[in-house]
Amino acid sequence: MKRLRSDKVYDGRYSSVRIDELRYEDGETAEREIVSHPPAVGILAHDAEHVWLVRQPREAVGEDALLEIPAGKLDVEGEAPLECAQRELAEEIGKSAGEWRELKHFYLTPGWADEHMWLFEATELADTAEGEADPGERIEIVRWPLAELDAAIEQCSDAKSLIALLYLRNRLR
Amino acid sequence: MKRLRSDKVYDGRYSSVRIDELRYEDGETAEREIVSHPPAVGILAHDAEHVWLVRQPREAVGEDALLEIPAGKLDVEGEAPLECAQRELAEEIGKSAGEWRELKHFYLTPGWADEHMWLFEATELADTAEGEADPGERIEIVRWPLAELDAAIEQCSDAKSLIALLYLRNRLR
Repeated sequence: MKRLRSDKVYDGRYSSVRIDELRYEDGETAEREIVSHPPAVGILAHDAEHVWLVRQPREAVGEDALLEIPAGKLDVEGEAPLECAQRELAEEIGKSAGEWRELKHFYLTPGWADEHMWLFEATELADTAEGEADPGERIEIVRWPLAELDAAIEQCSDAKSLIALLYLRNRLR
Repeated sequence: MKRLRSDKVYDGRYSSVRIDELRYEDGETAEREIVSHPPAVGILAHDAEHVWLVRQPREAVGEDALLEIPAGKLDVEGEAPLECAQRELAEEIGKSAGEWRELKHFYLTPGWADEHMWLFEATELADTAEGEADPGERIEIVRWPLAELDAAIEQCSDAKSLIALLYLRNRLR
């Protein structure tokens, strides 16, 4: 498909909205309302006994404490996805990882928004040299036992975290 | 948390944006830019040999043919999530199901948008009485062999579909 026209109709802090006119290969055209949001990273950080999660308020969905994997927006100019993931793991959990692996790259809601995410697996975890994490007072660090992984999947209601935990569940069988 | 104020700053066809002021339990306040989008349903439809997927263009992310599970917005007034899923399965795949089960309810991007989804598992599939599906000319129906489920997970880059296929993968081990 080819973009013929693009009109920005809202330009906010992180989100913007545009109306695009597109032409498909067969010549037909269509108009779409598209929400734009920065790409992001998610981190499946675990050792042989625990996976590291966070609980935080999510104002957009009215939740006081949603269980999630560590994650963050790619909003530092020029920062690569892996660097961003390393920074977020240190900031949210206070850990560095000896081993990083890209698990998956995917779209969150491709029907209407352009956000995409790199999901990394981080292992060989160690405390960061800088000491304690500074996750902001509203993020609680949760060290979840792998022996109770099914309960984490049950409690979790966040798409990226479900993908990460289900990958791990598959691996561990 | 409590919402103190809500200002709509964009009101589009499907998406809207508002700036909310919130107060947490401890008295601190915060302002958030929140995108609103209708809730949705996704359907993991399978029998003992195949899972039913679709390939369709996703203009928001510039993809000509994204591999996904059947899904749709809850945009018919008064329609329950299960009814919506039954309608979408008939429209997109031309099937009805004898057995429906709610697998999971989750948020797609709780950090910035309020969209949430009910994921259903549909089994005991039969062709709909109405005959052929009318998925619109840009949706291709894909009958994917369960024996090659890992390849579907590999090819898939859509969050809801990854969740559904990873659940199925876990079930089949």
